[in-house]
Amino acid sequence: MVRHLAEVSKLVVKIGIVGGTGYTGVELIRLLLAHPEVEVAVVTSRGDAGVPVAEMFPNLRGFTDLCFSAPDVEALSKCDLVFFATPHGVALEMVPQLLAKGTRVVDLGADFRIRDAELWSRWYGLPHTAPEALAEAVYGLPEMNRTAIKSARLVANPGCYPTAVQLGFLPLLSKGLVDTQRLIADAKSGVSGAGRQGKVANLLCEVSESFKAYGASGHRHLPEIKQGLSLAAGAPVGLTFVPHLVPMIRGIEATLYAELKQDSDDLQALFESFYENEPFVDVMPFGSLPETRSVRGSNLCRISLHRQPESNVVIVLSVIDNLVKGAAGQAVQNMNIMLGLPETAGLNLIAALP
Amino acid sequence: MVRHLAEVSKLVVKIGIVGGTGYTGVELIRLLLAHPEVEVAVVTSRGDAGVPVAEMFPNLRGFTDLCFSAPDVEALSKCDLVFFATPHGVALEMVPQLLAKGTRVVDLGADFRIRDAELWSRWYGLPHTAPEALAEAVYGLPEMNRTAIKSARLVANPGCYPTAVQLGFLPLLSKGLVDTQRLIADAKSGVSGAGRQGKVANLLCEVSESFKAYGASGHRHLPEIKQGLSLAAGAPVGLTFVPHLVPMIRGIEATLYAELKQDSDDLQALFESFYENEPFVDVMPFGSLPETRSVRGSNLCRISLHRQPESNVVIVLSVIDNLVKGAAGQAVQNMNIMLGLPETAGLNLIAALP
Amino acid sequence: MVRHLAEVSKLVVKIGIVGGTGYTGVELIRLLLAHPEVEVAVVTSRGDAGVPVAEMFPNLRGFTDLCFSAPDVEALSKCDLVFFATPHGVALEMVPQLLAKGTRVVDLGADFRIRDAELWSRWYGLPHTAPEALAEAVYGLPEMNRTAIKSARLVANPGCYPTAVQLGFLPLLSKGLVDTQRLIADAKSGVSGAGRQGKVANLLCEVSESFKAYGASGHRHLPEIKQGLSLAAGAPVGLTFVPHLVPMIRGIEATLYAELKQDSDDLQALFESFYENEPFVDVMPFGSLPETRSVRGSNLCRISLHRQPESNVVIVLSVIDNLVKGAAGQAVQNMNIMLGLPETAGLNLIAALP
Amino acid sequence: MVRHLAEVSKLVVKIGIVGGTGYTGVELIRLLLAHPEVEVAVVTSRGDAGVPVAEMFPNLRGFTDLCFSAPDVEALSKCDLVFFATPHGVALEMVPQLLAKGTRVVDLGADFRIRDAELWSRWYGLPHTAPEALAEAVYGLPEMNRTAIKSARLVANPGCYPTAVQLGFLPLLSKGLVDTQRLIADAKSGVSGAGRQGKVANLLCEVSESFKAYGASGHRHLPEIKQGLSLAAGAPVGLTFVPHLVPMIRGIEATLYAELKQDSDDLQALFESFYENEPFVDVMPFGSLPETRSVRGSNLCRISLHRQPESNVVIVLSVIDNLVKGAAGQAVQNMNIMLGLPETAGLNLIAALP
Repeated sequence: MVRHLAEVSKLVVKIGIVGGTGYTGVELIRLLLAHPEVEVAVVTSRGDAGVPVAEMFPNLRGFTDLCFSAPDVEALSKCDLVFFATPHGVALEMVPQLLAKGTRVVDLGADFRIRDAELWSRWYGLPHTAPEALAEAVYGLPEMNRTAIKSARLVANPGCYPTAVQLGFLPLLSKGLVDTQRLIADAKSGVSGAGRQGKVANLLCEVSESFKAYGASGHRHLPEIKQGLSLAAGAPVGLTFVPHLVPMIRGIEATLYAELKQDSDDLQALFESFYENEPFVDVMPFGSLPETRSVRGSNLCRISLHRQPESNVVIVLSVIDNLVKGAAGQAVQNMNIMLGLPETAGLNLIAALP
Repeated sequence: MVRHLAEVSKLVVKIGIVGGTGYTGVELIRLLLAHPEVEVAVVTSRGDAGVPVAEMFPNLRGFTDLCFSAPDVEALSKCDLVFFATPHGVALEMVPQLLAKGTRVVDLGADFRIRDAELWSRWYGLPHTAPEALAEAVYGLPEMNRTAIKSARLVANPGCYPTAVQLGFLPLLSKGLVDTQRLIADAKSGVSGAGRQGKVANLLCEVSESFKAYGASGHRHLPEIKQGLSLAAGAPVGLTFVPHLVPMIRGIEATLYAELKQDSDDLQALFESFYENEPFVDVMPFGSLPETRSVRGSNLCRISLHRQPESNVVIVLSVIDNLVKGAAGQAVQNMNIMLGLPETAGLNLIAALP
Repeated sequence: MVRHLAEVSKLVVKIGIVGGTGYTGVELIRLLLAHPEVEVAVVTSRGDAGVPVAEMFPNLRGFTDLCFSAPDVEALSKCDLVFFATPHGVALEMVPQLLAKGTRVVDLGADFRIRDAELWSRWYGLPHTAPEALAEAVYGLPEMNRTAIKSARLVANPGCYPTAVQLGFLPLLSKGLVDTQRLIADAKSGVSGAGRQGKVANLLCEVSESFKAYGASGHRHLPEIKQGLSLAAGAPVGLTFVPHLVPMIRGIEATLYAELKQDSDDLQALFESFYENEPFVDVMPFGSLPETRSVRGSNLCRISLHRQPESNVVIVLSVIDNLVKGAAGQAVQNMNIMLGLPETAGLNLIAALP
Repeated sequence: MVRHLAEVSKLVVKIGIVGGTGYTGVELIRLLLAHPEVEVAVVTSRGDAGVPVAEMFPNLRGFTDLCFSAPDVEALSKCDLVFFATPHGVALEMVPQLLAKGTRVVDLGADFRIRDAELWSRWYGLPHTAPEALAEAVYGLPEMNRTAIKSARLVANPGCYPTAVQLGFLPLLSKGLVDTQRLIADAKSGVSGAGRQGKVANLLCEVSESFKAYGASGHRHLPEIKQGLSLAAGAPVGLTFVPHLVPMIRGIEATLYAELKQDSDDLQALFESFYENEPFVDVMPFGSLPETRSVRGSNLCRISLHRQPESNVVIVLSVIDNLVKGAAGQAVQNMNIMLGLPETAGLNLIAALP
């Protein structure tokens, strides 16, 4: 087979990936191999150093000759930008060293998402050992923080649920239209959100042909979402968040409920104008029913609004691909912003249907 | 192959099924063929009269020699009890004739579920032409109406979503513990709930590997649920109900949200005592995560309760098999009650896992 | 919830299960809990001793109070019959001790399936340390060995693929109609055949929405199938066997190809008469297309025959549920035969469809 | 949302698509919208004229403003090249008219695949009314016919199964290494191969969690495959072909069996050299296990070889995406060749995993 390399215009930007053996990692590699302006120089894995990336991920056969290497700050620091696609705690240790060497970082993990280190510790069970990095980290939701992302040295890429939920609630909260103490987010995710570890709970035989809630008494994404919504609302919000596991590989759907403080005819117009210039948010016609497959493999978030008869509850439906807009795609979007590239570079992806 | 007939103790009870070609129909046949006290005498289908039932449903090969017959009131009236597993409007026409002949009826369709004929017409788009039958119909949720079901001539078997949602909310409402104006039911169903018609929307290629809300601006089960909850609460409730389509065949999960009027430590005890003697409701330990697969093919509803930190919202998780407790199984349960049989006869079914 | 115990007529037969934490184990428990003539007295698990069975397997909540116990020959020997649902090598050790104490055994693992201990060692990578038990073991395919099973002390329950493949080929081989050197079995299995270990390879995200062959250069079931077919043919057969992984939980389909030595008009009649008295083999009309779902959860094997234009190849399609007729159901069938119970006791199961 | 149009270098090539409402149609649109050298000018649908393409296919929202139009030879003839993604019989009528006007055609349907019009009629049940077009049609398997495709006015794009099966057998047959009278192709396809019609048989509830053979007594792709293999072998071959339905959306796996005429050590080298310069055929290392997901959404065919102990049967495993290399992708590959574009233009697609 002839290699199909992406046609790279100028190999100026060198990229490193720490923790390339998970689903977020392989999706990042897929997106970056097809990105016209960057070159993946290093992909690390502690456990699989030496293994060809394409041997672990058969979709990549013919597209890359990279092998996993052991994580090494020296080698990574030669990259222009490093992505962390690691379990929480890993970036905490290595990021300060990279920043010290002038390497910019996008962390797809949770280590720098929560501004309050103590709160972070409570939910993640570790002391937060990088307070300075945390202090400078920018929360990488471009629709909120584009300007800050541009010059950030460290971007905390949002969680998958937080992306879908925040994009759905933001217009309502920023305009002060709803009761901020009664927000409900009922969210559903495909199984890839649970990662690539060999756990019984994620076997096809355990999760296929079944549906369940999980984390219903409190999930780690709850404080992250509350933080973002509270910033938008200008005051602490009251939020109930229940995630669920859907028997499919990719996709998140969030059904959001909020009480309107007063009736409003122009919710649709509000959403449309709020996201008017956003390349990756699609406000669908009022009453539409977004499907996760319509964004599978793409970086889009599609949103629609609903009202029910005799009710002052506004319902927002929001769908993303958890591995793209909810992880690797948004990370590339952040990278594009940080590097001054066109924000959509490498992200003009149409979902394949069916 | 030797036929495996259910070992029927006494063939005293003759059963008819009107509309046996849908998923509710075949599930009813499966349950009744294995029921020790009844005999399926007639299964009708307008379009497939003459076709062997086991030719349409390959799981039944070897278990029945029945053929579909054209619906005929005379033949049906010779049965002791007739099930309707038909689209709305069909039972409306035929049920009065059967009642007149003394045949008892369980309607698995929607024709007699809503007590207010005008409200029914608005949601179902037909005039309600059987007001007398409607007046005597008993809503067949045994956990609410067991006594009335016993002597009913006509039982309106509840819808699938209404079963899961009502069983989850009932204890809270009957005790007056929650704000009845702010109920939210976020429900999810497998695709079998959409029936066995050849529609593009239900093709595997359209619904597999995807998730979406539907009916978000108002679904036909909304008035049915509201009616039941209002009865339990003693006053009209305010409810937002959003159903979703899960890429699996069977199962409903409902995640219910209600605001506690005052804090309460004994919610778990309340639920346990409320359902103490119910053979088909399993109140799981506080904080459990019921999975739809744990009730697949069985008549159980499993329920659990959750609270989140610093929140006065009680979360109820409720799972059923939409074709069993949500349709055919509950219909058999109603039949058992009506006929004075043991309520669990033919329904001691353990879900197969995995 | 009121417990729904199976209505057990006489609790005369006590059953033990060694290795109850796998998919074969839980299926065995499900079948035995509903069996009218037996009582499950012991279920062992080395790693999960003390854990309630219904905590690991949520489908069993309300149906059993059993806890896993550490495997103990003394306790097991008090059972009338013990099932082994263990990885190969475990039964090898314990079975001789149980036989010595007079306890009869059905081994659902592979330890006693291959008569040639050396051949077994080559495929399974262990020395065979129980030659005497092996010598007396009866291969538990009732359709071949019913008489021997009746009085056997040790039954080697066939593998899942071997069951589907042998039942499809047996009539042809026993009548000498096909070229025994050119048999091809292309078989496909749901993922539950791969067990309940937490392996990356069996995650939903790895096997859903994909299809592949595996073991194509030689699978452990190859020598088992060859042994059975050679016995039927009266001479060593030449067989190519390729298994495949289907993105579903349960079911095996085997498509079998054989060259007719001379043309034959009565293949269908041959199959029908060969299996005339078999309660669990359904020979479908010529040209039928058996679906695995038609036997899901049931102990049936459904078989059909095909010919293509201008071809002397006979095609046999054979479907089973790998966990029932391919494992736990066949084990119960063997138990019934061994104990003189009706062969179909506890196995009158209709597949649920859809 | 800002429109993400593909960056088209020069809008020189205008493309028409007849029959854009099926799965092959939407895949073709997806590929062509992202293709750098072409513009989709017309997409026809008899039944849905006037409907925006992105309304029917939600993945395309934001990527195209096209509406379906009624099929019209005049409008189509203004295109440089027209694809037919229609049921058999449609191209038969319209293609001669387009050829007469100088428009080149790639037919993704079956109308021009079989050289023998009478044989075609027998399998497809229609008289072949375009014998002249048939005479000039080139069978569009680039790996066989690249030179002829370059100058062809009409290319018959191969069927999905024929692509996977022929690419697997071709090296063996062209070198005369195997018994051409004993070829067996056991092939498996995702459900998208069955199209987008609203048929009960293709509902999720009918095909999910199940596996079956179909067309086992003779499938329309049999004569097409035989024709190609016979050409490669230089004489008529004997082939048994059985297709199966896999509960997934996309992907075909073919397991091919052939008897070696004499033992051969260099099969792997043969395959590697045979496909050395093919951009879309990946010969994997000997003994590899290709998965359909590794080519999902991509135009690759991945192939591997296996042998079993003491056997002279060579096993070839071949996987493609039925909608890409098996339909729309191969059609674009043919278009690229016909138009003198780089053969891989618009087809450098990496499968998304998981």
